[in-house]
Amino acid sequence: MMKNKLLKHGLLVSLSMLASLNFTAVQAFESSFAIAIHGGAGAISKSKMTPEQRQAYEAKLKEAIDVGYQLLSQGKSSQKAIIAAIQIMEASPLFNAGKGAVYTFEGEHELDASIMNGETLNAGAVSGVKTVQSPIALAEKVMEESVHVMLSGEGAENFAKKVGLKEVENSYFNTERRYKSLLRAKKKLIEKDKDFQAAHQSLPLEYKVGTVGAVALDKDGNLAAGTSTGGMTAKRFGRIGDAPIIGAGTYANNESCAVSATGHGEYFIRYHVAADICARMQYQNIPLEKAADVVINKILVEAGGSGGVIAIDAKGNIAMPFNSEGMYRASKSSNGQSFIGIFHNE
Amino acid sequence: MMKNKLLKHGLLVSLSMLASLNFTAVQAFESSFAIAIHGGAGAISKSKMTPEQRQAYEAKLKEAIDVGYQLLSQGKSSQKAIIAAIQIMEASPLFNAGKGAVYTFEGEHELDASIMNGETLNAGAVSGVKTVQSPIALAEKVMEESVHVMLSGEGAENFAKKVGLKEVENSYFNTERRYKSLLRAKKKLIEKDKDFQAAHQSLPLEYKVGTVGAVALDKDGNLAAGTSTGGMTAKRFGRIGDAPIIGAGTYANNESCAVSATGHGEYFIRYHVAADICARMQYQNIPLEKAADVVINKILVEAGGSGGVIAIDAKGNIAMPFNSEGMYRASKSSNGQSFIGIFHNE
Repeated sequence: MMKNKLLKHGLLVSLSMLASLNFTAVQAFESSFAIAIHGGAGAISKSKMTPEQRQAYEAKLKEAIDVGYQLLSQGKSSQKAIIAAIQIMEASPLFNAGKGAVYTFEGEHELDASIMNGETLNAGAVSGVKTVQSPIALAEKVMEESVHVMLSGEGAENFAKKVGLKEVENSYFNTERRYKSLLRAKKKLIEKDKDFQAAHQSLPLEYKVGTVGAVALDKDGNLAAGTSTGGMTAKRFGRIGDAPIIGAGTYANNESCAVSATGHGEYFIRYHVAADICARMQYQNIPLEKAADVVINKILVEAGGSGGVIAIDAKGNIAMPFNSEGMYRASKSSNGQSFIGIFHNE
Repeated sequence: MMKNKLLKHGLLVSLSMLASLNFTAVQAFESSFAIAIHGGAGAISKSKMTPEQRQAYEAKLKEAIDVGYQLLSQGKSSQKAIIAAIQIMEASPLFNAGKGAVYTFEGEHELDASIMNGETLNAGAVSGVKTVQSPIALAEKVMEESVHVMLSGEGAENFAKKVGLKEVENSYFNTERRYKSLLRAKKKLIEKDKDFQAAHQSLPLEYKVGTVGAVALDKDGNLAAGTSTGGMTAKRFGRIGDAPIIGAGTYANNESCAVSATGHGEYFIRYHVAADICARMQYQNIPLEKAADVVINKILVEAGGSGGVIAIDAKGNIAMPFNSEGMYRASKSSNGQSFIGIFHNE
């Protein structure tokens, strides 16, 4: 069981080590700086994924983690490292964030993002943004150049103009793959039920998840976390998921940990997943690994909430638990540990 | 100090009891059902408040708490009781929620609300709603009749139409008092600085706070919490405060407590105040009173965040700490305790 747990969380350990490993041993992986990223969790089907697709995802994850790690190794802040890593995933059509964002029911794209600095506990978030190329960059501007934590919709876009962020047409986010996904979702919604809410509830998980995020510890000992997403396929009514909710999709506090979540957002809000992992670690005095495991593999599983998190503590310990079939993820630490994977145990 | 703390939290105790009171004694106030409400915290000036104004606030608080208490005594759920109490405050021009909502910079009203059921951990929230008479009723509909937790803007209004909630013109929320407040705020914003963000930061606290909320324990032992607000005077850019953020402005869990917050929302989001009080109580195994006190009077004070909370646990203990000059508040328990007050110690 310990073996399974450790592998599931993406720690690279040799089989011979496993018998004697415990949570104390996990802490021996401490590093002076480290970064972890995710490109979404959900019903990623191992059997349906071609070798070419898998290679494309792993290559993009490697590019993103390497860029973030490079910045950290140069002494740059965890905040800058996570933004650089997230922006690489936002610019790729592979992930449900930025360029690869899913479609709303009305055939548009509404993007959400949030960021938190674990040293200052400052935070920024945006929701329902249609014309900003990099939502995570806007979240950072909200954090650093506004008196607010969370801006939404047109107001957030006006703020983006004011601070000079790059604007794009909403059609910039169009991709054939996501459009086909919208058409499939709408077909299912119409076939299933006249009641949109009930029909949407019954959509397969693949339409409800998908996010990118990053967490990092820098050489100064500061943590940061960030998350960016296009939300749920065929979402309606200005739905806001967990990604822009500080405490749900993103949380960072140097006294505990930094977390970025991905999954069925409604559950992550109700169980305020990111902050709860930090709270359990800090108040129960348990290791990050255990706090993250309880929330993802016990509490969320019992509630029926699919997804996962990436998390890092102030000692550089990394946990990447998920209760779905897969989670695109990668980590790299100054202690030499690194990992890129999609499914459990790989 | 104990005397001060207990009075500050609005517990009615005779002076002769104070010498021997401690947290254990506070738990002796356990009751089979109870409700607490707030009508906002902030720079309420005792010296400037006329006896007539004070009487008007206290009478409305009494009306709201009595209606909620009456429902609980009839065996109705905590969810129904808090909604009834909040709707009385929403319908009054006295409080910054519903009818009395403040103006945005553009001269409109954008309302936010959220609700959480401590038994099911289901939750609903709306932000940026302009045409729904009772935002807390819409938050309940989102919780019970949508697959989502949080809806925003026009999308939330479309959902309100779909479920048949009462619509009003945005001008329904116009009041002379709040309009004058907007004009004063804009004057200060223009005088102070050309940089809106810096100018807004320097606005007096009275422009940044104001919310209504309720928490309750019903005869079945279930907790619920709800919050409703018009947000910050002269807010811009689609700003979302803590009131519609599950974990920040509102949280409820039968295993710990139910909390509704009011104050400078940005701080309440960053410190995820409502959920943090519940987390500290549950994970540190400390009384509600102590958990709420640490968050409001230590953590938020050190961070510079003004405001307060009302909180209730599964035994009916009530805490109502605030670090601002005043907080409109009331509580009523089946053990005979009741309180209505505005300032510290009264």
